Amino acid sequence: MIKKQKIINDPVYGFINIPGGLIFKLIEHPYFQRLRRIKQLGLTYLVYPGAAHTRFQHSIGSMHLVNLAIDVIRSKGHKITEDEAEATRIAILLHDIGHGPFSHALENCIIPDLHHEKLSLWFMDELNKEFNSELSLAISIFKNQYHKKFLHQLVAGQLDMDRLDYLRRDSFFTGVTEGVVGSQRIIKMLQVVDDNLVVEAKGIYSIEKFLIARRLMYWQVYLHKTVLVGELLLSHFLKRLKYLYKEKGIKTGNVYLDFLFEDNNMSDKELIIKNFSMLDDYDIMSLIKQNINSQDRVIAGLASSLINRKLPRIRLSKEEIDYDFLNKIKQQFMKKYNFSAEETDYFVYSGEISNNAYDREDERINILFGEKLVDITEASDILNISVLGKIVKKNYICAPKSIMNKIS
Amino acid sequence: MIKKQKIINDPVYGFINIPGGLIFKLIEHPYFQRLRRIKQLGLTYLVYPGAAHTRFQHSIGSMHLVNLAIDVIRSKGHKITEDEAEATRIAILLHDIGHGPFSHALENCIIPDLHHEKLSLWFMDELNKEFNSELSLAISIFKNQYHKKFLHQLVAGQLDMDRLDYLRRDSFFTGVTEGVVGSQRIIKMLQVVDDNLVVEAKGIYSIEKFLIARRLMYWQVYLHKTVLVGELLLSHFLKRLKYLYKEKGIKTGNVYLDFLFEDNNMSDKELIIKNFSMLDDYDIMSLIKQNINSQDRVIAGLASSLINRKLPRIRLSKEEIDYDFLNKIKQQFMKKYNFSAEETDYFVYSGEISNNAYDREDERINILFGEKLVDITEASDILNISVLGKIVKKNYICAPKSIMNKIS
Amino acid sequence: MIKKQKIINDPVYGFINIPGGLIFKLIEHPYFQRLRRIKQLGLTYLVYPGAAHTRFQHSIGSMHLVNLAIDVIRSKGHKITEDEAEATRIAILLHDIGHGPFSHALENCIIPDLHHEKLSLWFMDELNKEFNSELSLAISIFKNQYHKKFLHQLVAGQLDMDRLDYLRRDSFFTGVTEGVVGSQRIIKMLQVVDDNLVVEAKGIYSIEKFLIARRLMYWQVYLHKTVLVGELLLSHFLKRLKYLYKEKGIKTGNVYLDFLFEDNNMSDKELIIKNFSMLDDYDIMSLIKQNINSQDRVIAGLASSLINRKLPRIRLSKEEIDYDFLNKIKQQFMKKYNFSAEETDYFVYSGEISNNAYDREDERINILFGEKLVDITEASDILNISVLGKIVKKNYICAPKSIMNKIS
Amino acid sequence: MIKKQKIINDPVYGFINIPGGLIFKLIEHPYFQRLRRIKQLGLTYLVYPGAAHTRFQHSIGSMHLVNLAIDVIRSKGHKITEDEAEATRIAILLHDIGHGPFSHALENCIIPDLHHEKLSLWFMDELNKEFNSELSLAISIFKNQYHKKFLHQLVAGQLDMDRLDYLRRDSFFTGVTEGVVGSQRIIKMLQVVDDNLVVEAKGIYSIEKFLIARRLMYWQVYLHKTVLVGELLLSHFLKRLKYLYKEKGIKTGNVYLDFLFEDNNMSDKELIIKNFSMLDDYDIMSLIKQNINSQDRVIAGLASSLINRKLPRIRLSKEEIDYDFLNKIKQQFMKKYNFSAEETDYFVYSGEISNNAYDREDERINILFGEKLVDITEASDILNISVLGKIVKKNYICAPKSIMNKIS
Repeated sequence: MIKKQKIINDPVYGFINIPGGLIFKLIEHPYFQRLRRIKQLGLTYLVYPGAAHTRFQHSIGSMHLVNLAIDVIRSKGHKITEDEAEATRIAILLHDIGHGPFSHALENCIIPDLHHEKLSLWFMDELNKEFNSELSLAISIFKNQYHKKFLHQLVAGQLDMDRLDYLRRDSFFTGVTEGVVGSQRIIKMLQVVDDNLVVEAKGIYSIEKFLIARRLMYWQVYLHKTVLVGELLLSHFLKRLKYLYKEKGIKTGNVYLDFLFEDNNMSDKELIIKNFSMLDDYDIMSLIKQNINSQDRVIAGLASSLINRKLPRIRLSKEEIDYDFLNKIKQQFMKKYNFSAEETDYFVYSGEISNNAYDREDERINILFGEKLVDITEASDILNISVLGKIVKKNYICAPKSIMNKIS
Repeated sequence: MIKKQKIINDPVYGFINIPGGLIFKLIEHPYFQRLRRIKQLGLTYLVYPGAAHTRFQHSIGSMHLVNLAIDVIRSKGHKITEDEAEATRIAILLHDIGHGPFSHALENCIIPDLHHEKLSLWFMDELNKEFNSELSLAISIFKNQYHKKFLHQLVAGQLDMDRLDYLRRDSFFTGVTEGVVGSQRIIKMLQVVDDNLVVEAKGIYSIEKFLIARRLMYWQVYLHKTVLVGELLLSHFLKRLKYLYKEKGIKTGNVYLDFLFEDNNMSDKELIIKNFSMLDDYDIMSLIKQNINSQDRVIAGLASSLINRKLPRIRLSKEEIDYDFLNKIKQQFMKKYNFSAEETDYFVYSGEISNNAYDREDERINILFGEKLVDITEASDILNISVLGKIVKKNYICAPKSIMNKIS
Repeated sequence: MIKKQKIINDPVYGFINIPGGLIFKLIEHPYFQRLRRIKQLGLTYLVYPGAAHTRFQHSIGSMHLVNLAIDVIRSKGHKITEDEAEATRIAILLHDIGHGPFSHALENCIIPDLHHEKLSLWFMDELNKEFNSELSLAISIFKNQYHKKFLHQLVAGQLDMDRLDYLRRDSFFTGVTEGVVGSQRIIKMLQVVDDNLVVEAKGIYSIEKFLIARRLMYWQVYLHKTVLVGELLLSHFLKRLKYLYKEKGIKTGNVYLDFLFEDNNMSDKELIIKNFSMLDDYDIMSLIKQNINSQDRVIAGLASSLINRKLPRIRLSKEEIDYDFLNKIKQQFMKKYNFSAEETDYFVYSGEISNNAYDREDERINILFGEKLVDITEASDILNISVLGKIVKKNYICAPKSIMNKIS
Repeated sequence: MIKKQKIINDPVYGFINIPGGLIFKLIEHPYFQRLRRIKQLGLTYLVYPGAAHTRFQHSIGSMHLVNLAIDVIRSKGHKITEDEAEATRIAILLHDIGHGPFSHALENCIIPDLHHEKLSLWFMDELNKEFNSELSLAISIFKNQYHKKFLHQLVAGQLDMDRLDYLRRDSFFTGVTEGVVGSQRIIKMLQVVDDNLVVEAKGIYSIEKFLIARRLMYWQVYLHKTVLVGELLLSHFLKRLKYLYKEKGIKTGNVYLDFLFEDNNMSDKELIIKNFSMLDDYDIMSLIKQNINSQDRVIAGLASSLINRKLPRIRLSKEEIDYDFLNKIKQQFMKKYNFSAEETDYFVYSGEISNNAYDREDERINILFGEKLVDITEASDILNISVLGKIVKKNYICAPKSIMNKIS
């Protein structure tokens, strides 16, 4: 008898074994297949052309790392039953299934106040119905309701396999090789103490490097000015699309989006998932092009700016926003292009971005010295605790280049 | 004074310098930016999830290799003026600009009998008008009308930089590491004799490996059964879309595609380019989803099969097609699903694929022994000439799994 | 309880787990530690400076691949007991333990007619005594006396893990990236039929590439002219050293080498191993430098030529050796430097090298089509059987540059 | 006419072009060829088997990076004449030529109080004589006497090409991938202000990562306990060898080493270089084996411990050395093995190691914000200044395992 096993070729890790059974069925499911059409990094490909990789790859890759981690933890004498292992694999596999078009770029735009993690849970609930409650343990781990907390921590925590995968994968595809994280070494250093995931002492330098690499990826990739500006443009496009639908009764041309724009439809979780699951990057991008010659000058302007990569200018600063300056630009813009104040807000606006490299309040990376646990920010003598624990905020003003350049 | 230069981060080669001036303007042009939205390998990502890279990256990468090749050729004492170098860079940069949605997968489907190379030339002509004939030399090199033939051969030939880039890039992103080609070494071995590109004798093993790697990529990636079956499905979807438009008057919902479906519009080259340039992978994929619940059962079936990755089964064989068998399947299908014969042809069909790894008739890879030129198939004692020169053809029959499995 | 495991950091594969128990003890043994001081590729570092890697790394790496192969074979339903697995690991770990200074370069020079495989077996026999016959099964597998022949084939055969490792490792360290072999893929394609190792049909392109890569490595690295010439020089140095010891009674200064130069000592296997195990690259290289100012002009000349990398010139040809030409050089050399005919033979000489990329007579690479086994040379339509099966021989003439350049 | 250029295949960077002329002659010189026989990382291969790379590769690699840096600096509008470029290349090529056997491991052991940089200068002086003063400018840059200080800073400074190369190369060969430094990106960010090398603002994250990677390499590789213990053992072996020569009149068997052991010979710089240049790793290792059965029990013990990798145990601590404990071990050792107090000092001893990751006093890494220069420790908000500027010292006690284990 010869056992068959599905293998996926991953440019990052090489061959990845896909277990048969439920995992295989979940991957084959249209809900999961849809992740093939959602870019991991939204519009980042406008800056890093290689960054066209998808949530599909990331989800499979994270599952692969969970497998490695489970092997390491077991080899150190901790018991993980096959059911627990399978549930942890499922939890990580589906942790991002709630992402919508362009991942974070449009989060909260299509359906207000619905974070992708909540949506992931809704998807899991639907799948749990379909698969006769076979996902119950996975959902319990995902929600951190299972007593072996380290299983949840492998899925979502300061050192989860999600982060290890996306830092490495995003480095790989953007070509920002400095973001590469030694996932193999970190995983080898994992240990479990009192049901919590910790890192052995000799892994401390790897953790330092992980934190620095993560910080580097934030400023060099995730919060790159041009990426930011592209995603602001995109979210304003969607905002206008919704406005036109709701206030002017203009259909988008996409039936699933129209459905989600209706407040009345927001009560039926099942229908929301059904329609939401039909949306991905492709629909939004196609809508952009369909609107390039729209009679609404606002949406036409936003669409054309996006499609032809004529991005606005952005000014980032740690200072307070200079509202006088902002208003001056707004006035100029209104005058020059003959737009109303309300319309102008789609083109000239301000806001705040922030990032915290290591949120100390929430959760800790524990390093195991002998039998003592020490948080990384105390264990490391080089990393500045106060900085790592602090949230960095920046304010921005965004406006078309033609206006911004003239004034500043 | 500090000169500024644009740098692109490429996961394959690292940093790529983008020269300023015309090249930079061409890259910024919407016609070229559009290549960011066209996957290099069509639906190959259905098999190799990493293969989400685009024509944009490939075009930039090929230009990078041309730059390296020009340096090598110059260092060996051959004169290439800066104008010639620039024109060659432009020619390779734009060599694929005529590709449409999903690259080869839909070639000839949207506009019949218009190969992407012809379209690339049309694009170049339009750009030449826009840029005051600055592309004339590039076009002349592209068309092989320039006397320094090796410049054309760098762009299109048995050993052009196009192939060197795509083999390496496609290997990289699919994760099929065995397709990796030693582009750096091959380029170092380039030489020019009588205005023709040749390879120095000690490069012979690299060329052998290049040909074997290419062959491997063909069978393992480019002509992979599942890729093939996906692309057949996609082209049948488009065929039906066109049929519905032309015979039933049903608009697609995409104004650019509608325009190109009108025979009357096929006389104006400029308008064709204008509309064609608005189409990319995103439009087609979005149309697929919009048709998933169409009242036309044929297009709904094809769309749903594509979007949920329920691909047909294919049978490849070197034998003649067994038409009796084919008709038997057709009958079963018609009966089972209550489709007409004409409708059935969208689901059950046969055809031929072929590939020739090295088309000896057309052009040769010349190896330079001392002062003598020898074709690689003679120079190599290991590669089987007759095989490399021969076109391999396979016939296929394609049908939904439910039907195919039952019968065979 | 926390299990400890030794991990080795390998630049080629990443972390390699070293099992505890006997394997660990064997690696710690001075006989095995000695492999750290024997370069895998002899004098190849004279051409490829990166090629300073050792037999130690290769032996560990091969064992790692055997582990992967065992996992694959087991996962396909074939039984391999833990004892068999351990024995196979030991057999591959020790397969090269009989190599002497500079690996192949000095084979048969120090002890005549003792091939390294025979010596490996002697070493294993000694170790088997020391470890209370715990190596018996390993030795039986090594000698191909065990009924599960595929275990031996993993250690020594057309597709053994030895070759997979050295091709990849040598590519890695020489920087000849084209020699890279997709070991991961080939291992995934392994299968066992009637106790023999075979390859699944879809692995055929990988095997083709493996054979081409191997051929490329032969001509580009293993039989590189400069490497060859360096190793000929080295073997002539040793020949002279032995001559001086035996005919002139001049001690080498190295007690272990002196011992092995005595014919009387050649009867005691245990003493041979004891002394041979004390020799490695370091001793020979040090002797070269100690002889640079020797009173014997022959050995001084050879030593100085080696240490200062003033290598002779070599002429390779498929033609018969032109003895007239050879004698003319010899005459010139004798006259110019005032050497005797006998002394001249150390500087001017001829010989033959050969290589056969795939020795069809000996053993086959079987490809499994359905249930039928076909040899790769029949299964592949591109590889030229007669070439792969044929031994390529070349003749050479070697002489100092000063002489050779003048005449030719 | 076809220009020939020498190319070296480097596993780290790929092909490296070797310019003809003086550079080529220097590389061919026996003084430089000798670096092929000196390991870059001394005995580090005892822990990381891949670390068998040599000073030869590192010197060539550093020169390659200098070439890239010169291109970048020139492209930013700063003038570097071809003579200056050539001199800088020579300076970096020869910066390590003064290294002796096992690089740092035996520094100051063979010739007391002669640091390798001083010896490098002596070598350069000798070569300058041989090459008719063609190295004068290179020597001036090496000594930091040339007015364009940034040329010296490329060779020796906080961000010199030496460090960029060795961090990357050592990462590569040890397999400690986390030490990988983005040399390409850092070089792209170089700029010159007032003849000093600075880094552009957007390079700040890369510099942070460079400093962290360097720190990681220190603790994970350069100051690895087992490496340290091996090198202490080696230096004690040499110390005893010298003692036996000087106090007991026992020749080492190596004429060059004997020469250097004579105080009388220390006055003639030329003779020192002549003899020193004949020594490398091979001589020392061979001497170790020749002494394994020496009648002097001290040197026999040290040699056997080294060759069979039976390394002592080391205890590292930030605390003061516990001399009571140390003496207790010494007593036990003397008693157990019947050694004198003086002899015991070769086996049981204490000492101090230190490292400062970024010596702020000496020199700064200047980051260019607009037109303002800021030191990295101020520019970075995450790196802890006081830590980076501080020298970390650790004390150690070293003794044979048999003794150490018993007591502690």
